[in-house]
Amino acid sequence: MVVTRGFFIGRFQPFHEGHRRVVETIAEEVDELVIGIGSAGKSHAVDDPFTAGERIMMITKTIFERDLDLVTYTVPIEDIERNSVWVSHVQSLCPRFDVIYSHNPLVIRLFREAGLEVEEFPMYDRDELEGTRIRQAMVEDGEWRPLVPSPVEEVIDEIDGEERLRQIARSDTEAGHDGPSA
Amino acid sequence: MVVTRGFFIGRFQPFHEGHRRVVETIAEEVDELVIGIGSAGKSHAVDDPFTAGERIMMITKTIFERDLDLVTYTVPIEDIERNSVWVSHVQSLCPRFDVIYSHNPLVIRLFREAGLEVEEFPMYDRDELEGTRIRQAMVEDGEWRPLVPSPVEEVIDEIDGEERLRQIARSDTEAGHDGPSA
Amino acid sequence: MVVTRGFFIGRFQPFHEGHRRVVETIAEEVDELVIGIGSAGKSHAVDDPFTAGERIMMITKTIFERDLDLVTYTVPIEDIERNSVWVSHVQSLCPRFDVIYSHNPLVIRLFREAGLEVEEFPMYDRDELEGTRIRQAMVEDGEWRPLVPSPVEEVIDEIDGEERLRQIARSDTEAGHDGPSA
Amino acid sequence: MVVTRGFFIGRFQPFHEGHRRVVETIAEEVDELVIGIGSAGKSHAVDDPFTAGERIMMITKTIFERDLDLVTYTVPIEDIERNSVWVSHVQSLCPRFDVIYSHNPLVIRLFREAGLEVEEFPMYDRDELEGTRIRQAMVEDGEWRPLVPSPVEEVIDEIDGEERLRQIARSDTEAGHDGPSA
Amino acid sequence: MVVTRGFFIGRFQPFHEGHRRVVETIAEEVDELVIGIGSAGKSHAVDDPFTAGERIMMITKTIFERDLDLVTYTVPIEDIERNSVWVSHVQSLCPRFDVIYSHNPLVIRLFREAGLEVEEFPMYDRDELEGTRIRQAMVEDGEWRPLVPSPVEEVIDEIDGEERLRQIARSDTEAGHDGPSA
Amino acid sequence: MVVTRGFFIGRFQPFHEGHRRVVETIAEEVDELVIGIGSAGKSHAVDDPFTAGERIMMITKTIFERDLDLVTYTVPIEDIERNSVWVSHVQSLCPRFDVIYSHNPLVIRLFREAGLEVEEFPMYDRDELEGTRIRQAMVEDGEWRPLVPSPVEEVIDEIDGEERLRQIARSDTEAGHDGPSA
Repeated sequence: MVVTRGFFIGRFQPFHEGHRRVVETIAEEVDELVIGIGSAGKSHAVDDPFTAGERIMMITKTIFERDLDLVTYTVPIEDIERNSVWVSHVQSLCPRFDVIYSHNPLVIRLFREAGLEVEEFPMYDRDELEGTRIRQAMVEDGEWRPLVPSPVEEVIDEIDGEERLRQIARSDTEAGHDGPSA
Repeated sequence: MVVTRGFFIGRFQPFHEGHRRVVETIAEEVDELVIGIGSAGKSHAVDDPFTAGERIMMITKTIFERDLDLVTYTVPIEDIERNSVWVSHVQSLCPRFDVIYSHNPLVIRLFREAGLEVEEFPMYDRDELEGTRIRQAMVEDGEWRPLVPSPVEEVIDEIDGEERLRQIARSDTEAGHDGPSA
Repeated sequence: MVVTRGFFIGRFQPFHEGHRRVVETIAEEVDELVIGIGSAGKSHAVDDPFTAGERIMMITKTIFERDLDLVTYTVPIEDIERNSVWVSHVQSLCPRFDVIYSHNPLVIRLFREAGLEVEEFPMYDRDELEGTRIRQAMVEDGEWRPLVPSPVEEVIDEIDGEERLRQIARSDTEAGHDGPSA
Repeated sequence: MVVTRGFFIGRFQPFHEGHRRVVETIAEEVDELVIGIGSAGKSHAVDDPFTAGERIMMITKTIFERDLDLVTYTVPIEDIERNSVWVSHVQSLCPRFDVIYSHNPLVIRLFREAGLEVEEFPMYDRDELEGTRIRQAMVEDGEWRPLVPSPVEEVIDEIDGEERLRQIARSDTEAGHDGPSA
Repeated sequence: MVVTRGFFIGRFQPFHEGHRRVVETIAEEVDELVIGIGSAGKSHAVDDPFTAGERIMMITKTIFERDLDLVTYTVPIEDIERNSVWVSHVQSLCPRFDVIYSHNPLVIRLFREAGLEVEEFPMYDRDELEGTRIRQAMVEDGEWRPLVPSPVEEVIDEIDGEERLRQIARSDTEAGHDGPSA
Repeated sequence: MVVTRGFFIGRFQPFHEGHRRVVETIAEEVDELVIGIGSAGKSHAVDDPFTAGERIMMITKTIFERDLDLVTYTVPIEDIERNSVWVSHVQSLCPRFDVIYSHNPLVIRLFREAGLEVEEFPMYDRDELEGTRIRQAMVEDGEWRPLVPSPVEEVIDEIDGEERLRQIARSDTEAGHDGPSA
């Protein structure tokens, strides 16, 4: 029996309902799924609040809860400053995969130039589910909870994620510039 | 219910019967296990023949076959040239863990200096099961197959691992020095 | 006798009167002070004109001139692109310290997540003393000299710092884009 | 006979008519010319669409076609995040050179601080020939072809460069943020 | 007309008669040749005495002197610690090539796993012409001159290469350990 | 008044009596001394047991105790894998210096190729005072204490350095290979 293995990459800051729906759609087409966690080295930043380890937790617990019939691998992928070697970088860290699921034009371009099959999927409702909006809601005490799967909510609460995001957000509006990498 | 999560790290070049026994022993003590794949960026070298992705396959398939009652996360850990920040590096890439299982003195030291709990476990039979011996046997057409779980054997065959190792091994004995990083 | 050692980090581009006042305030509370020079690798940029070596000079000469009763260590800290390991990075480069002085929310957050004591101090008058304003004044032939300690003025004059800043500033307004890292 | 060797650096995204004219002007003053290809590691980005290898092709073919009496070396120069070591970085990768041709204030400053001779040359007509405009024209199906030497046009067509740029440009306007390094 | 472009990589420490003969043999088979200079970032070490810039000079001057009917590109290739992305790394820095010439088993393996055509060529007389022997002869005032093309001899004399090698060699035999990267 | 500033670099693993004597000799010739701590990022290794921060402590406390009439700066210098840019790297991190004190042939060569003045000083008694012997003595419960200044002894005791070294040393003799960077 030949196993079909898909690949889906995102930053998952955090893993939200839009991501979950994509995973469930892909689950109907493949036997196994590699979920690449992009910008794995980043955390504690307004656009990248959670560590790779925290994001692995969010994804694994969500998939477990949904009881999907799908073998998944969640693989942290650290950034590499060279787009032209990025496909090799991903391939060496992940189990071999047959088809890439993406709606990101750069990802699609890079995999296609490398001769791989990419499936562009219809977009989930971005207006509601974009990561930026969810992070913004966390900072401003808005309604983010309905936008993420409940296991993600639990992880965020466990690590005191809302408070982390709020505190970090102040670094950007005040003029300090004296923080890490600043 | 509180989950106890263990951490076990190795290079797994390849994942062998000794590693499998360690995992099964730990499985009796914890609810979940994070398996860190060290030197994740290395491959195609005599001491590090397999990519992180290939090693993830070996581990996941072996655990699946044994049907262990254990949630596992396999996380590739790239080397970092600074021992003093290595613990933070590991922690940021992995789900939070409570206890480290190791018999490596440096690993034990680093985690203990960071104030974490480490359990030193009795060694499996190293004479037979050391990675070095297994890789040597692959190069010399020796008896390596009984020393690894059968799913590992399948992965190695699928990627033509024996031939890769043999070819790479010639780079060291011939005087070329003109290869990558050489 | 137990020594209390404080830690204060900044980019010090340049070290100005606001920084000096903070150091003098901390001097009353600790026996020794580690001054971390952030973004140590950066220089010759509009927001980061001075090298780490030049900034060490500014700080050491100012403290010497003020004749403070305080043992100080000035330690260049290169940026690291991973906030989650930044605390370890700092700790491994510096003498052990007991208390962190900071008003930067990200710095405060990172040290607190690592279980360390942070003291948030009342802000010096930022409107006057922000680094950005001082650098702007240098570019535009404005009144920057009263805003820095006189030994800092001497260092800047010795390295022809005003002219360096003015020349670099032109790289941003002209459309070249052909410079280093550009 | 003493050979005079010049140095000219740019990102050459792409190599255009303005660059060609500069090279032809320099050719009258030196015997040999080192052309440094800056940001060599970057590609597949809106401001940096072409790989170093592709840019080497553009330059070499153009110089060959013009039949200049000039020995040229085209050397890819990867970015280095430290301006203060950038001159050493360039010097170690290139044949020794006597005079630098540049109109970039940062490049001029860095070489002069290192004690080297820099010749600032009169600007070619930037309004027409800036790389930004040419890339913009590619994305919007505008008139870019007259702005580059014909061998550059051929290279861009061979690698399907227009389509690459258009596809990448969509990554910036859509809200994905899930691509490489994003 | 279709151009056939070959690729030949080495460290060229220094470029010697064996390398020259290989280039002349390949010249009969291809129209253009990309010469990759491996370990481009290394220099001032016993096994890697010359900078990439110095090696570019050696190669270019030798090919010019022999008046070969061959377009050549000499491209410095910095080491990358990940064999699995090395092929992509090389490809992004070089003009596209059709066939690889190598006798290094690791290079052959990596290109073949990437699906590229590799031609293994008969070895030149390694006993005489190995780089190690030539460098050893330089240190010990031995007969290295007949083993390199005369333009290489000139480059080495111009940069005082013999003396550099002798001085560096003492770092290894004395017990200092206090040098760079030591 | 013109200040003469010297530069002295070592790994100082640990700072021992030989190093102290060199510093006292240099103190008679210069007004200020920059002490570069090489391989600053390394620690917890048999040849590099102590962090940069720990080594700063050793040096500063020793100089303070001796009450030398000498302004000193201790600057951690992380390794850089490129000898040809190493001098620039050091210069950008340190206050400007006039004369280099070294007995390491590579250091001498690199500074001289950069056009700087180097003073080779007569060796202290290496047989007794080499770092290797001192570290060996620590591992084997030998007589290392008389070979280091007493403030260094105190630092080592405070951080439990003997035990650290002993534990790390076991990583090399056992066959684990599963530690960091291994």
